Amino acid sequence: MILDRITAPAALRALTIAERCALAEELRGIIISTVQRQGGHLASNLGVIELTIALHTAMNLPADKLIFDVGHQAYAHKLLTGRSKGFAALRQDGGLSGFPNRSESVYDCFGTGHASTAVSAALGFVRARDLTGERYKVAAIVGDGAMTGGLTYEALNDAGKLRSQLLVVLNDNDMSIARNTGALNEYLTRLRASGKWLGTKRAVKSGLDSIPLIGRPTSNALEWAKTQVRRIMVHGDFFESLGFRYLGPIDGHDLESLTDIAAKALRANLPTVLHVVTRKGKGSPEAEAAPEQYHGVSRRFQVGASSDTGLSEPGAAPSEEGRCARVVGDALSEIARADPAVVAITAAMPSGTGLNRFKERHPARFFDAAIAEAHAVTLAAGMAAGKLKPVVAVYSTFIQRAADSIIHDVCLQNLPVTMLIDHAGLVPGDGPTHQGVFDLNMFRAVPNLTIWTPSGLDELRDMILDGVSASRGPLMIRYPKSLPAKAGSSDERPGSIIAILAFGASAPAARAAASILTDEGVTASAILIKSVKPLDGGALRALTGSGARLVTVEEGQRAGGLGGAVVEWCQDNGVPAPLLRLGIDDCFPAGFSLNTLREGLTGEDIARAALKALRR
Amino acid sequence: MILDRITAPAALRALTIAERCALAEELRGIIISTVQRQGGHLASNLGVIELTIALHTAMNLPADKLIFDVGHQAYAHKLLTGRSKGFAALRQDGGLSGFPNRSESVYDCFGTGHASTAVSAALGFVRARDLTGERYKVAAIVGDGAMTGGLTYEALNDAGKLRSQLLVVLNDNDMSIARNTGALNEYLTRLRASGKWLGTKRAVKSGLDSIPLIGRPTSNALEWAKTQVRRIMVHGDFFESLGFRYLGPIDGHDLESLTDIAAKALRANLPTVLHVVTRKGKGSPEAEAAPEQYHGVSRRFQVGASSDTGLSEPGAAPSEEGRCARVVGDALSEIARADPAVVAITAAMPSGTGLNRFKERHPARFFDAAIAEAHAVTLAAGMAAGKLKPVVAVYSTFIQRAADSIIHDVCLQNLPVTMLIDHAGLVPGDGPTHQGVFDLNMFRAVPNLTIWTPSGLDELRDMILDGVSASRGPLMIRYPKSLPAKAGSSDERPGSIIAILAFGASAPAARAAASILTDEGVTASAILIKSVKPLDGGALRALTGSGARLVTVEEGQRAGGLGGAVVEWCQDNGVPAPLLRLGIDDCFPAGFSLNTLREGLTGEDIARAALKALRR
Repeated sequence: MILDRITAPAALRALTIAERCALAEELRGIIISTVQRQGGHLASNLGVIELTIALHTAMNLPADKLIFDVGHQAYAHKLLTGRSKGFAALRQDGGLSGFPNRSESVYDCFGTGHASTAVSAALGFVRARDLTGERYKVAAIVGDGAMTGGLTYEALNDAGKLRSQLLVVLNDNDMSIARNTGALNEYLTRLRASGKWLGTKRAVKSGLDSIPLIGRPTSNALEWAKTQVRRIMVHGDFFESLGFRYLGPIDGHDLESLTDIAAKALRANLPTVLHVVTRKGKGSPEAEAAPEQYHGVSRRFQVGASSDTGLSEPGAAPSEEGRCARVVGDALSEIARADPAVVAITAAMPSGTGLNRFKERHPARFFDAAIAEAHAVTLAAGMAAGKLKPVVAVYSTFIQRAADSIIHDVCLQNLPVTMLIDHAGLVPGDGPTHQGVFDLNMFRAVPNLTIWTPSGLDELRDMILDGVSASRGPLMIRYPKSLPAKAGSSDERPGSIIAILAFGASAPAARAAASILTDEGVTASAILIKSVKPLDGGALRALTGSGARLVTVEEGQRAGGLGGAVVEWCQDNGVPAPLLRLGIDDCFPAGFSLNTLREGLTGEDIARAALKALRR
Repeated sequence: MILDRITAPAALRALTIAERCALAEELRGIIISTVQRQGGHLASNLGVIELTIALHTAMNLPADKLIFDVGHQAYAHKLLTGRSKGFAALRQDGGLSGFPNRSESVYDCFGTGHASTAVSAALGFVRARDLTGERYKVAAIVGDGAMTGGLTYEALNDAGKLRSQLLVVLNDNDMSIARNTGALNEYLTRLRASGKWLGTKRAVKSGLDSIPLIGRPTSNALEWAKTQVRRIMVHGDFFESLGFRYLGPIDGHDLESLTDIAAKALRANLPTVLHVVTRKGKGSPEAEAAPEQYHGVSRRFQVGASSDTGLSEPGAAPSEEGRCARVVGDALSEIARADPAVVAITAAMPSGTGLNRFKERHPARFFDAAIAEAHAVTLAAGMAAGKLKPVVAVYSTFIQRAADSIIHDVCLQNLPVTMLIDHAGLVPGDGPTHQGVFDLNMFRAVPNLTIWTPSGLDELRDMILDGVSASRGPLMIRYPKSLPAKAGSSDERPGSIIAILAFGASAPAARAAASILTDEGVTASAILIKSVKPLDGGALRALTGSGARLVTVEEGQRAGGLGGAVVEWCQDNGVPAPLLRLGIDDCFPAGFSLNTLREGLTGEDIARAALKALRR
């Protein structure tokens, strides 16, 4: 294997171009087989193999800084930087993260995971370099999707005034341009044949013009948003207007040309954009044919189970569990049939959130705001002011982007917007950037907001039906990726000494703990919390009045979460404080499998901790 | 007065153009005299008087929807919609808000306060209208500053695919264009003379081209960012690329032409941009000459005391208090002299945050990220990864925009970024959109983050010097607009039955309460909390060990704030819960004066509440 000779990226420069092309195929093979085995992001990684080799050849890492936006396309980068051994355990406990991570390698100069951060971070390195008098090069690889996020625009707007080196590589991997624009394909073909690497933008412009500006089907909203972005950038001289030098478009799979132009682009003492056209899934016939389905891939290519980023978890869920997304899509469709005011909004996650099922049935009432969570929420506020009943579905980790929109636009105005917070709690596979462990803590303090927490798919469905049709005010329903089909009822045992309060993914553990404790002679109940804000004061009063000590359990930060709410309620009501508040204790959860992530939160863990606390 | 005849905006259409021009001058006079008396935003409001009259004439409010971005420029709108009586008490308790507010008037269809939300909200109305089959018109007025925010870009990108009516009025009030571009002035003059209202963009383009693209002084970073934005929009066919129809630029003070073109622009069944060039401060010689100083104006034009949005509070602060911003600027300048790695970043608030004082002394190490808080924080993360010691200064209410950048880019990577959170706590004058009452609650759950809370200018200074030079990891220092010169020490009395824990603006009230209680025979201490995360466990243990009952006081939401932190600490450590947790009780604070906002949090209030709780 040529890869065995790449102990550091510098070794790339000793290879012939033929060897580097062969290396690209080696990487392709490793990535396909690893993702087949472990799950992971396939299409995006296959698309940037040549680009990554070219940048590693033209740059001098780790002195130079290479930042991957989102970062799910960094597999080739990891393989080229001495991590091929750990790569076999990609997304597994003890293995490599699916994203760049500063603590994993000196070659990962900036960790990513959420979209649209790379240009801001790269500009930070540039300013640091220029002020400290260092001389390294800085490059950011940004996909067309991340270009729809406002943060990228804010950063580009700030960067344009630089008079020093900053390379933004626009990784334009959208199939729509490759498919729709015959002119571009022709142009790229001619490019390859001629050996030239750089042409005019005329071909791309005319290709874009063949896409009708008005009346695209809304069912393809994200594709449209990306096309819009591309249209501004290519057609409207967007980058030049900002002060960037623009190079491209260039064929992202022509390694030799790519390497030459990357080297040239990196020499410029000006902010420079290199527009590279890549093909998602390149080299995998299945992934090339259906890159959307192969964006995130479950183990063994279980394509049916995949979603936008919903990769299969290494520690599989119990078989009776089901994906919440499916219930969400069906429940929303059902309400929408009865109520024409109901509309649904996602931020580039129609499949992951289940809204694709809504979109199929109510295409005119489905809106994809692109990778733009703040816009999705403020848009919903406007819709609610216009008398619709909007539902926004976003993952917990991404709703952090919309905090101000939730406070300032939805809750302050007390508008009836329903926010469905998916992947709330511990999330397997993706690592610390994607844990949904902050939403309760961030939003519990927001007035006018109600927060419900279902513990089963049936409860999730009921809450959606009830909440959206009642449309009383700002409502958040937060749930993990998967839930048991039935929430069941609380396990209340008369004479309980301990009452374990939990919801969502922690409900089964709470039940198990209550059984274990009862078996050991400490009678315990498991109480399902359906509403964290407001809490059910009557129920809490009954529990504490019976003499039970409370234990709270949550897959979220302890500070200010369910436990915080309960201990505050106890203080407000003059009842004894909870015996225990279990949750994430002021750290970013480490590990990739649910088993590891849930250490300390299993039924046995809860029972053991409760007994210990009781004996103190 | 002509205004007396405008009982509803429809009455405008019955006026002659001469009468409407006279009305504009009436409004100008009312706004100037009211802002002289009450404080408020002057320059921006004087700039949009003709634009507001034109839109009200061309539209049919309240059926039609007019949304003001930021909203500090809505005074003429308020006067034209039956609120001239309440306008006399602008920004006063019982008077009008300085921003649009749905609960104030049916003509305020969407409340604003923070920048860059209007296009998202307007698009929400458009989609609601089109789905419900209503027929109203929708327009958003967006300033060039709000165009630097990523949220506007996200919304424009989404809106471009509409095939129905949406008007975005670009209120281009930047002096740089008016001053720098002789061609534009000439063009506008010709326009007025010819009676034509619409020309080509050639004049603007050539005017923009006369602004050098590279090497503008960084001291004028926000102006630069706006010029950049204008450059993209006008030069690069930004709006057309997105699918918008572009009309303009047009003279924003030619009422007749403005009204004609607004009516025409509103008839288009396409997303349309009307680019209007206005003059900030129009009609007030002082404000026209120095619009930046007259952006926010204190009462009686105490220009020296004004800041970006730091208007004078109706309930004046005690005379020994001082603006924190001044201390921030000086302390940062001092550290920067000793340590070349220290850099400072603001998001369009150099004056409000005090960084203008830093900028004067260290221009090369000052960065204005424009109205782009998320970018400011992620940029700082990149700088810290590049071995600088960045300090980001943002108001509490605006840092909500950067929640994900703080979690994902700064704290997860444990990077030494210092975040100075100004205007934290209750903020006079601006109303509920600008209260800094969520930051502790949102960020206390974030791992790796330290949160300090000074109670005096001396302590603020020490914390900045200590925190920035030590540069240990993510640090947040949060403080109100003003603090006493000296924090003083805690008032600890031996044998205290009650210990009142407080910080910042609540510290004087805590001291007063302790004195009152002690005088009434209930010995009480006032304890200044310097760090909310982590809490000083030793001090809390000593207090509770001595038998004192804890009372927490904060100008912030009770849920998960200081009180939440203390009650959680008590539960974790098995000591009795606090007697009382005082703060904002799950509502958006109402009122404009600090006296009203602080109801329930004065020394007497605290003492009374503590006594009552003690007797229970």
